[in-house]
Amino acid sequence: MELPGVVTEGSQLTHYEGTEKLLEIWFEPLRHRNGDIHGQGTPDLKVIPRERLVELMKLVHCEIVSEKCRDEHHAYVLSESSMFLSKERFILKTCGTTTLLSAIEPILKLAKDFCGFTFKTVFYSRKNFFRPELQEVPHRNFEDEVHYLDTLFDCGAAYMLGRINGDCWHLYTLDICNGQNQPDQTLEILMTQLDPSIMKHFKDTTGRKAADVTKASGIADLLPDCQIDDFLFEPCGYSMNGLLPKDGYMTIHVTPEEEYSYVSFETNIELEDYGDLVNKVLTTFNPGKCVMTLFASKTAKCGTSMKALSETFLDKYRRHDRQFSQFQTYDLTFATYIRDKKV
Amino acid sequence: MELPGVVTEGSQLTHYEGTEKLLEIWFEPLRHRNGDIHGQGTPDLKVIPRERLVELMKLVHCEIVSEKCRDEHHAYVLSESSMFLSKERFILKTCGTTTLLSAIEPILKLAKDFCGFTFKTVFYSRKNFFRPELQEVPHRNFEDEVHYLDTLFDCGAAYMLGRINGDCWHLYTLDICNGQNQPDQTLEILMTQLDPSIMKHFKDTTGRKAADVTKASGIADLLPDCQIDDFLFEPCGYSMNGLLPKDGYMTIHVTPEEEYSYVSFETNIELEDYGDLVNKVLTTFNPGKCVMTLFASKTAKCGTSMKALSETFLDKYRRHDRQFSQFQTYDLTFATYIRDKKV
Repeated sequence: MELPGVVTEGSQLTHYEGTEKLLEIWFEPLRHRNGDIHGQGTPDLKVIPRERLVELMKLVHCEIVSEKCRDEHHAYVLSESSMFLSKERFILKTCGTTTLLSAIEPILKLAKDFCGFTFKTVFYSRKNFFRPELQEVPHRNFEDEVHYLDTLFDCGAAYMLGRINGDCWHLYTLDICNGQNQPDQTLEILMTQLDPSIMKHFKDTTGRKAADVTKASGIADLLPDCQIDDFLFEPCGYSMNGLLPKDGYMTIHVTPEEEYSYVSFETNIELEDYGDLVNKVLTTFNPGKCVMTLFASKTAKCGTSMKALSETFLDKYRRHDRQFSQFQTYDLTFATYIRDKKV
Repeated sequence: MELPGVVTEGSQLTHYEGTEKLLEIWFEPLRHRNGDIHGQGTPDLKVIPRERLVELMKLVHCEIVSEKCRDEHHAYVLSESSMFLSKERFILKTCGTTTLLSAIEPILKLAKDFCGFTFKTVFYSRKNFFRPELQEVPHRNFEDEVHYLDTLFDCGAAYMLGRINGDCWHLYTLDICNGQNQPDQTLEILMTQLDPSIMKHFKDTTGRKAADVTKASGIADLLPDCQIDDFLFEPCGYSMNGLLPKDGYMTIHVTPEEEYSYVSFETNIELEDYGDLVNKVLTTFNPGKCVMTLFASKTAKCGTSMKALSETFLDKYRRHDRQFSQFQTYDLTFATYIRDKKV
């Protein structure tokens, strides 16, 4: 299979875009004006038949390569990143030159048809690509993505955090006051310029076992009580989903090639402070640069995201940017860091 | 004189871009490595000869229409907005289709030649234009402006606050850790969709006195101990500079036409909290929407800008967005508000 996102010049690989597009949609039952539930079906996204998910992945140009269930959620490792389904939450994260936005209309329809669901809130986000010109339309620039999303949603709000002439991160969400009523938090750490001695774990993978890499790299020790579904790509590359209790998850994706090395870490684990976890992740991967985002809903255990993202790692990293944004039912801290040359 | 920025279709005025471009440069004496002052000249921007400022304004496509001095600074009302010179600070704010960026290289050279100065920090900012396509290159989009600024400065950092698909505000500044070592703060309130009954003060100006408009509109009462230089344009439009003690200033510019009404308020007055002043400005102009920014340097009296911009006006206005950004020697609060329809 020729992987999307791989550019071949002659027979030489020249680029793989590890940078993911990330979609998270929260659903709720469609209701009549009097509050009665209107929709048909079982109000749980996990009832959507697997073959429908396979079709959905085809639209995005990727496929399911592994899957694991735990209590309240299903996690899928994809040929390009991951998908998570819990009762009311759908997460799709895809890298390469996948066309993630083409999944939105179909998933809204599947959720309506099988679960009687309508969307409650939506997040689409991504870091700036290494090579945007290699993406499919409308993913080549964020303005085009926003234009498409605005055709689907009435109250979309699009933001650019970080630097126009440097590392930045794009977000599209909905500006609605009843968007989220439960505790929720998401931490993402998007790392570049990774330590080649660490990236060796994820290269020359032929004949090796994913579980060994998960252990040797330190990934297995990042979070306790985590059921891991890990996958090694050939000749290089690594993905893992970790299922935590309730609908908790973590997910890591590694593009180890030095020219465009990229590692993403994401979790929704409920903590009061994320400083120690961030420190552990940075120590595990030792990136030259990273973009960090923490979303916290108004009822999240951690309080505001700025307070909860304590900078326990300033002995090794210098803060480049930090921005705190307040939305209707979430707040967000965005920050970028650069490894201190003295370390 | 045909004003730049005025589009005529047949003989009908169709648009005037009130939205200003704003440049603020702080200077300091050029020094040898041993700390000795290197530059020639008097270290005070006010020694730059007036005819050189007149030439500078020609490059930007505007001209000086009025001027006033107080102790430590000179304030100029321009055909398009304002200019302020104090010992080490240069501020140029121009609207219409002026080409503000073309003033940067010349002012850096004037400051070097006459004052032995080099720049300490730079801020270029503006709200999104009503009609960007009517601007001169490179002002049609912020990316082009950033590209130009990056040819002048090594460590520029460019940001977009607010919404890509709504009201936003652009900032270019320098990422240097010794950028500002003294207390400094700047509040801007950029208002649109203004109350037509208030805008009447600034229309049909022929034969009227600026001082009467300043008084009748309530502008005279906004800040105490303010020496005012006000100017009425014909057939409509208003500008004022207010000189406060030391190098304090306020400046207001009004484009009253209903189709593209715009009022800007800016001051560097030192306060502990800006809530009451903001409330007074909003009451004076009653805008439908506004963008607010407050910069505070690390040694500013008000502490962090977010704390200092208390929202005393949430009985009349709904917060649309709020973002807090931390730079090396300043922090910034950006917020947008919409007038509550119930009021």
